Amino acid sequence: MTDYAVRIGKMAHAASKLNKLTAGIGASEGMISFGVGSPAKEAYPLEKLQEILQYILQKDTRAYEALQYGSTIGINDLREAVRDQLLAARGLTAKLENIMIIAGGIQAMGLFCQLFINPGDVILVESPTFVHAAMIFKTFEAECIPCKMDDDGLIIGELEEKIKMYKPKMIYTVPTFQNPTGVTLSRERRIQLAELAGKYDVIVLEDDPYREIRYSGEEIEPIKAFDKTGNVVLANSFSKILSPGVRLGYIVATEEIITKLKDIKLAADTCTNTISQVMCAEFFKRGYYPDHLEYLKNLYRSRRDAMLDALGKYFPKGTKYTKPDGGYYVWVELPGGLNATELMDEAVEKLNISWGLGSIFYVEGNGYGDNCMRLNFSGLTEGTIYDGIEKLGNFFNSKLVK
Amino acid sequence: MTDYAVRIGKMAHAASKLNKLTAGIGASEGMISFGVGSPAKEAYPLEKLQEILQYILQKDTRAYEALQYGSTIGINDLREAVRDQLLAARGLTAKLENIMIIAGGIQAMGLFCQLFINPGDVILVESPTFVHAAMIFKTFEAECIPCKMDDDGLIIGELEEKIKMYKPKMIYTVPTFQNPTGVTLSRERRIQLAELAGKYDVIVLEDDPYREIRYSGEEIEPIKAFDKTGNVVLANSFSKILSPGVRLGYIVATEEIITKLKDIKLAADTCTNTISQVMCAEFFKRGYYPDHLEYLKNLYRSRRDAMLDALGKYFPKGTKYTKPDGGYYVWVELPGGLNATELMDEAVEKLNISWGLGSIFYVEGNGYGDNCMRLNFSGLTEGTIYDGIEKLGNFFNSKLVK
Repeated sequence: MTDYAVRIGKMAHAASKLNKLTAGIGASEGMISFGVGSPAKEAYPLEKLQEILQYILQKDTRAYEALQYGSTIGINDLREAVRDQLLAARGLTAKLENIMIIAGGIQAMGLFCQLFINPGDVILVESPTFVHAAMIFKTFEAECIPCKMDDDGLIIGELEEKIKMYKPKMIYTVPTFQNPTGVTLSRERRIQLAELAGKYDVIVLEDDPYREIRYSGEEIEPIKAFDKTGNVVLANSFSKILSPGVRLGYIVATEEIITKLKDIKLAADTCTNTISQVMCAEFFKRGYYPDHLEYLKNLYRSRRDAMLDALGKYFPKGTKYTKPDGGYYVWVELPGGLNATELMDEAVEKLNISWGLGSIFYVEGNGYGDNCMRLNFSGLTEGTIYDGIEKLGNFFNSKLVK
Repeated sequence: MTDYAVRIGKMAHAASKLNKLTAGIGASEGMISFGVGSPAKEAYPLEKLQEILQYILQKDTRAYEALQYGSTIGINDLREAVRDQLLAARGLTAKLENIMIIAGGIQAMGLFCQLFINPGDVILVESPTFVHAAMIFKTFEAECIPCKMDDDGLIIGELEEKIKMYKPKMIYTVPTFQNPTGVTLSRERRIQLAELAGKYDVIVLEDDPYREIRYSGEEIEPIKAFDKTGNVVLANSFSKILSPGVRLGYIVATEEIITKLKDIKLAADTCTNTISQVMCAEFFKRGYYPDHLEYLKNLYRSRRDAMLDALGKYFPKGTKYTKPDGGYYVWVELPGGLNATELMDEAVEKLNISWGLGSIFYVEGNGYGDNCMRLNFSGLTEGTIYDGIEKLGNFFNSKLVK
């Protein structure tokens, strides 16, 4: 059989790590999966979407727009909704020409790699980082160098040292309620990061899908809001605030970058699903978003609180875990030499419980993160969270005693 | 500003060619555009889709499936519809494991390039070829080598010579009602091409979006039906038979290839739009497709007939044009040194008529195809076709006299 391209070999390891995580999607009903990062079943505004789709598919020009090819940059109505309700409302001023609609937030990673990354280029990533992004970077034969974080996100001093040392093409960050840790980059560091990007002429890829879903603390502007040189590019998604099934996201960048990205997007898939775009635009146009977002925040806040409470109650003494102000995940570091990577199979078999293996989020390899877990709370009810965490806690405690 | 990747320079010329074509999408109402390749406004089964969407978004598990992440390979219902109604019904037996759903047919080109193409690899393409595919191949820094066609498609003897000479990684073909010429590869040559693929261990990428829409002549099996070695991979689309806005297509290949493609697709966009998938699957499940296809064929057959009749009546003596048995396009070669590339601007300005410039479909460059035009008939009514072709014919005749 014909040889595969070189990149296939390079991405193989990263792909197998990612597949471990997504294997949980669609898992058996009985399993408690803390591993996947999906919205709650209760999170979809079904009736409103049905009402909108009925309206759209009336025999008028709107139906034709929804079923025909769309422009590569995305339909105007949706870009206006992004500009007004998702950017200006969060402290970021942008023009329509700065905004491109894409097929889910993940597509941004590939598009930006196509635009900027040659084989061998260095990308600085957070340690730990979003495993899916790291896999995409490997696909483009980039070298991922990990950078340390603390409770305020990336440590800027160390980051600057690594910029000088590795001359990276790009810095990849999930600054708000980070995936996998839930940590948020402070406002001061956002300003510093935007300055570094300009100073060293490196692209900062700001991946911000969780920012809207804040349960506590004060809102902070995107890094892009502090960008004076055009070096910061922003990627975001509708998956967490409307539905992953619509496969919609957006990019914010300079007009020059957007113009280049249009060619790349055209080559990738011509344009983004227009039915989804028209539906989503109408959802925002009708003013449904603010109430829906409040509903989501209330839904998920209780689940986060349940998770944090249960972890405190049931997990072994000495367990460290983050207390995220938003998003989907809590990051856990187990004490006493507990190896979560090794214990996963037994937990699945005996307890029918799984989680996100901490180790897959580290590009370092070498056993990094073997004592860590990414725990999702958005997709599970409070009862299930308490039940699952209690069982897991007992399980880990039993392993400690030995 | 940061440097772009090397591939951006390589794709720039191809991108500008493609943009000339797609510039016509969404052009002013008054313009008669023979350039774009969109379905007719009358081609969408609006009422049936509305009925289906209402059904799907009832509060049940189906709605949840439609709005949630889906599996990377695509939902089962849609893959079953492909297997039974689009493959088995056309002489190609495949298992579910051989079928992957993608975001429109175009996405297949990028996925296959990621899987097989290293920079510098040779891809044999038809002369002329589908400009969008050629642009994607350039994005992957492949070298496109053109191969001659006649009224039965690719000339196999010449093709084999080029295989020996260039040792290509891939052969790209649109075998049925080719874009841009409307020509169909004969059954005998399909058998030969599948054999060549195995003999020389080269991938044949069969891009077949028009095959369903046949107005005359006998159906021929896909090249993939004659593939004994797994070297033929098939890409197809729902854009021409249902709607481009749903952004759905599919790939048929060996299980080994599909397994690799799942990782690549996961990196590209996680999964294909699930709302579209569920809707499309339901359309096929309810048995709506056969009648809808008949409707499309009748709609477009009249338009093809009008186009061919008008070309015979109004275009300059000595004009050559194809007589396609299906698809969207007629390919025209103007006589007497008429240069369609040069005359386009004047035609747009004076007549408000545009077409697909023949030259952009040739990877040869050097003025190849300057006397050629790709004329779309699917998107225009018969009256508009007669009107536009008469005006264009008069215009070209006036240029000949000089």
